[in-house]
Amino acid sequence: MKKAVILLSGGLDSATCLAVAKSEGFDCYALSFDYGQRHNVELDCAKKIAESFQVSAHSIININLQLWGGSALTDNSIDVPNAEDSHGIPITYVPARNLIFLSFATAYAEVLGAKDIFIGVNSIDYSGYPDCRKGFIDSFQETARLGTRAVDENWHFEIRTPLQNLSKKEIIELGTKLGVDYSLTTSCYNPDAEGRSCGKCASCDLRKAGFAAANIADPTKYI
Amino acid sequence: MKKAVILLSGGLDSATCLAVAKSEGFDCYALSFDYGQRHNVELDCAKKIAESFQVSAHSIININLQLWGGSALTDNSIDVPNAEDSHGIPITYVPARNLIFLSFATAYAEVLGAKDIFIGVNSIDYSGYPDCRKGFIDSFQETARLGTRAVDENWHFEIRTPLQNLSKKEIIELGTKLGVDYSLTTSCYNPDAEGRSCGKCASCDLRKAGFAAANIADPTKYI
Repeated sequence: MKKAVILLSGGLDSATCLAVAKSEGFDCYALSFDYGQRHNVELDCAKKIAESFQVSAHSIININLQLWGGSALTDNSIDVPNAEDSHGIPITYVPARNLIFLSFATAYAEVLGAKDIFIGVNSIDYSGYPDCRKGFIDSFQETARLGTRAVDENWHFEIRTPLQNLSKKEIIELGTKLGVDYSLTTSCYNPDAEGRSCGKCASCDLRKAGFAAANIADPTKYI
Repeated sequence: MKKAVILLSGGLDSATCLAVAKSEGFDCYALSFDYGQRHNVELDCAKKIAESFQVSAHSIININLQLWGGSALTDNSIDVPNAEDSHGIPITYVPARNLIFLSFATAYAEVLGAKDIFIGVNSIDYSGYPDCRKGFIDSFQETARLGTRAVDENWHFEIRTPLQNLSKKEIIELGTKLGVDYSLTTSCYNPDAEGRSCGKCASCDLRKAGFAAANIADPTKYI
């Protein structure tokens, strides 16, 4: 069976990505990161999603991007805004995050003998994040080929981005069709201790609007 | 003062790289990785070298590549050979290691506001390692630009590889001229508990031959 590495954050998008990989018949190896997020809700969700899709392995890599600050998501001294400015790079951007995540995924794939790496990046809702754009992903794919045994063995990794051009509505429709239990996922920047979503942040707004547009009941627990 | 991030392994090459960055007047931020190496001699050396060059900061990032195995340097079940086959990818290759290290360096540089990243890769002695070749480095530089705020702000990171085309002899000559104390560095794959080098592995062989060719006294402590 073909193997694939899936970057799994615990959010709606990466859960949908995992469902796509499963639907294509891949033997799935999920990879999550403990990078000093403000809360552990995300990783708890990632574990439940990985379990629900019966992945072959789920590894959580501990890295400390908090060391560096620079983002509202890892630096407690920066407030997460309720509504994000749609121009420029958002304060929730974590410097080079997907570059680091994809690099680990490449190393893991090389050791596993997997050639497909799934990442739930999206250009519609996250156009402000440079590391979610197609140009970056394409360039990374070539860099991964050149920096591994792939280059000497004449093959390449496929960085799979099945959500690249989908709206939140379309992502939710796709995942629902593929059996994603979205009650296991989280999107909120400011969840409470029990994992309930604030319903007010930019990420909650996007999620709520997506379920509404898809005309699918939103299973999220809000505070 | 211009800032630079320097990947510092504790070896001869990266120490020379740091000396080059210092000689160009950079404010130096050293970055090392605890990635489940077989021994801690390397990191002890990295600390001493960082101190000897009075870097502004030296961060050691803990990542667990040992999780994956696949290399004689991180997997205790694979023996390190005394003489390496000069064809193909060596067993001491650690999958996507420089891809991961450069990704962290890029994130760190982005947060610091540094545009120069120094890495001691070399195409002469390590042509078997894909992630030491110029093609990979050039591609990474472009990927780093596309995946960070650099792309929106119209600048790019410079991945600096001052040792790319130097022989071990030339590296030792350069570092000696720039004041590197090579007794603080290590190259050995199999050092003893006191940090003394085996004098027999492929890496020791290269180092000894370099000092001999440069006609410079080898300060390494051998067992």
